[in-house]
Amino acid sequence: MRGTTGYAAFGPGEDLRPYTFERRDLRPDDVAVRVTFCGICHSDLHAVEALTPGGDPFVPGHEFVGEVAAVGADVTGFRVGDPVAVGNIVDSCGVCPPCRAHREVYCEEWPVTSYGGVDRHDGTITRGGYASEYVVREAFVYHLPEGLDPAGAAPLMCAGVTTFDPLRRAGVGPGDRVGIVGLGGLGHLAVKFAKALGAHVTVFTTSEEKVRAARDLGADAVVVSTDDAAMAAAERTLDHVLDTASGKDDPTPYLRTLRLDGELCMLSTPDRYEPEAMALLGRRMTLSAGAGTVRTQEMLDFCAAHGIVADVEVLPFAEVNTGFRRLEKNDVRYRFVLDVAGGRVRA
Amino acid sequence: MRGTTGYAAFGPGEDLRPYTFERRDLRPDDVAVRVTFCGICHSDLHAVEALTPGGDPFVPGHEFVGEVAAVGADVTGFRVGDPVAVGNIVDSCGVCPPCRAHREVYCEEWPVTSYGGVDRHDGTITRGGYASEYVVREAFVYHLPEGLDPAGAAPLMCAGVTTFDPLRRAGVGPGDRVGIVGLGGLGHLAVKFAKALGAHVTVFTTSEEKVRAARDLGADAVVVSTDDAAMAAAERTLDHVLDTASGKDDPTPYLRTLRLDGELCMLSTPDRYEPEAMALLGRRMTLSAGAGTVRTQEMLDFCAAHGIVADVEVLPFAEVNTGFRRLEKNDVRYRFVLDVAGGRVRA
Repeated sequence: MRGTTGYAAFGPGEDLRPYTFERRDLRPDDVAVRVTFCGICHSDLHAVEALTPGGDPFVPGHEFVGEVAAVGADVTGFRVGDPVAVGNIVDSCGVCPPCRAHREVYCEEWPVTSYGGVDRHDGTITRGGYASEYVVREAFVYHLPEGLDPAGAAPLMCAGVTTFDPLRRAGVGPGDRVGIVGLGGLGHLAVKFAKALGAHVTVFTTSEEKVRAARDLGADAVVVSTDDAAMAAAERTLDHVLDTASGKDDPTPYLRTLRLDGELCMLSTPDRYEPEAMALLGRRMTLSAGAGTVRTQEMLDFCAAHGIVADVEVLPFAEVNTGFRRLEKNDVRYRFVLDVAGGRVRA
Repeated sequence: MRGTTGYAAFGPGEDLRPYTFERRDLRPDDVAVRVTFCGICHSDLHAVEALTPGGDPFVPGHEFVGEVAAVGADVTGFRVGDPVAVGNIVDSCGVCPPCRAHREVYCEEWPVTSYGGVDRHDGTITRGGYASEYVVREAFVYHLPEGLDPAGAAPLMCAGVTTFDPLRRAGVGPGDRVGIVGLGGLGHLAVKFAKALGAHVTVFTTSEEKVRAARDLGADAVVVSTDDAAMAAAERTLDHVLDTASGKDDPTPYLRTLRLDGELCMLSTPDRYEPEAMALLGRRMTLSAGAGTVRTQEMLDFCAAHGIVADVEVLPFAEVNTGFRRLEKNDVRYRFVLDVAGGRVRA
């Protein structure tokens, strides 16, 4: 077994504390990744809040980059020292139709998530990337292209794929008018992607303060969603809308911004969506989960070609709880990234 | 003005009574249609129930066939005596993007409906096809192809276009697996269309009694939707589902029958849809309204090529109230059609 040090939560909502545990010995198709930077995702926060008292120590983290530390006997795509990235899924059944289409995030047996998932071989619970090392099947490891800042690249592995995949599946390109709802970790990357794909981009935000920030990111238009007149003026103007804001259950206002045949893609899941029926007339609504393996590597290569990384604030690993507390208050622009290796790995 | 006799409702939920009124004199682009057969749609029933007491006499009917009785000076596409059909919209703005794409049913100023609509020129309220004659812009009149039984063709103009358009827009063809929810006026035509397009068709019905009827219409599979085990077995099996059943607000069970990228098309409008969020994961949901002018003529020509008409029960015009009462109890297979001309027109 491979000794690993990281941070874990020991109860719901508790501060994370240093934790030493073991990763599995490498299977023939495994890669060991020495983690250098790991993003803090809202999901990490929610997962810690939702812990069961008395459960196993919980290690968050599902968007990270690092270097290959060791490879299993059958690994052919990676060598020790390769810069790599790992995201929020680390295995899947491999044989269902979505898996065969390399859209493993839609695996009909559910993909194995990077933390809190059940390993398909030994039944252990996966532990995330807030740790010195991660062990993962080669098929779910990605080459981190040269030229991408590794700290800024870490959030691409969750916030990035989650917004890139629906834009690409919708075929967004020049001439399209795209709306992005919310300007957080996901939203700010969605703006960069949609602009790089050539679209006209409108950002919807509840916050007057973010208008300038949206413009700085390249948005062509910004609508403060509490402004009824501005929302009315935006009706029937867009082809695709990505709703990156969490917790909304009534998507009606954003459905109304769509033209005929336009699509609203939700990226968060309340229990139910409750749109007014007529708002769906000639429009579509969907929920997207992220990306499979092929799209994930495509996204990283696209980012390298277009110079896209997340705008991040890097925190020393030991300040993970500061990151959680500030994230709870949305006090971040736009993503916290933990300096897991303390700058030593690349020294 | 053109004297017309028909049936009208004079108050909410009241029996229809004979009514004599005037249609407008023909404008240059108008066609006068001598109505021979007019279908009874559930919408007619609902419209009568929703009348305002003390309002104008209300003439229902928005799916009818007949013969051209007269044409305006500028009409070039029709001659007196031509067999024709008229549906549920009779005018639109003509200049908005949906209208320019000949998808007038999605007109951004709302299309003018065949009854209860506001004429765009004189502001009068339109009166429907339960009448000896109808006057309508040439652009909203369709050629009724030879060989189609006129009584069976009348419901094509509402029930037909409403189901044909979403199947065609989805590109349904051989190899596709299509689900049809409900086996009424719309559903039975949807089954015929989907089979003629080459798809594998599964019918969902609440009624054990309709299983045999669905098979007779060509369904490859039938699921009684109250059978939990059968519904569970149908999960992730379909590419497209048309929900023709009225009044449902929780589409979750039918979303679950869809494969990745599958689409549920609703054809009825409660106030809100309330799907479980996770049921939309990798699936789409939309609401369809019918068809524009180009698709409507395409649908009639498709029906002629494939020998498709609605299965109807023809009622003498004077028995319209019998039709309404039986329709209230769903005692019809699958559509009532009024013999408006009493067999005299073609004599």
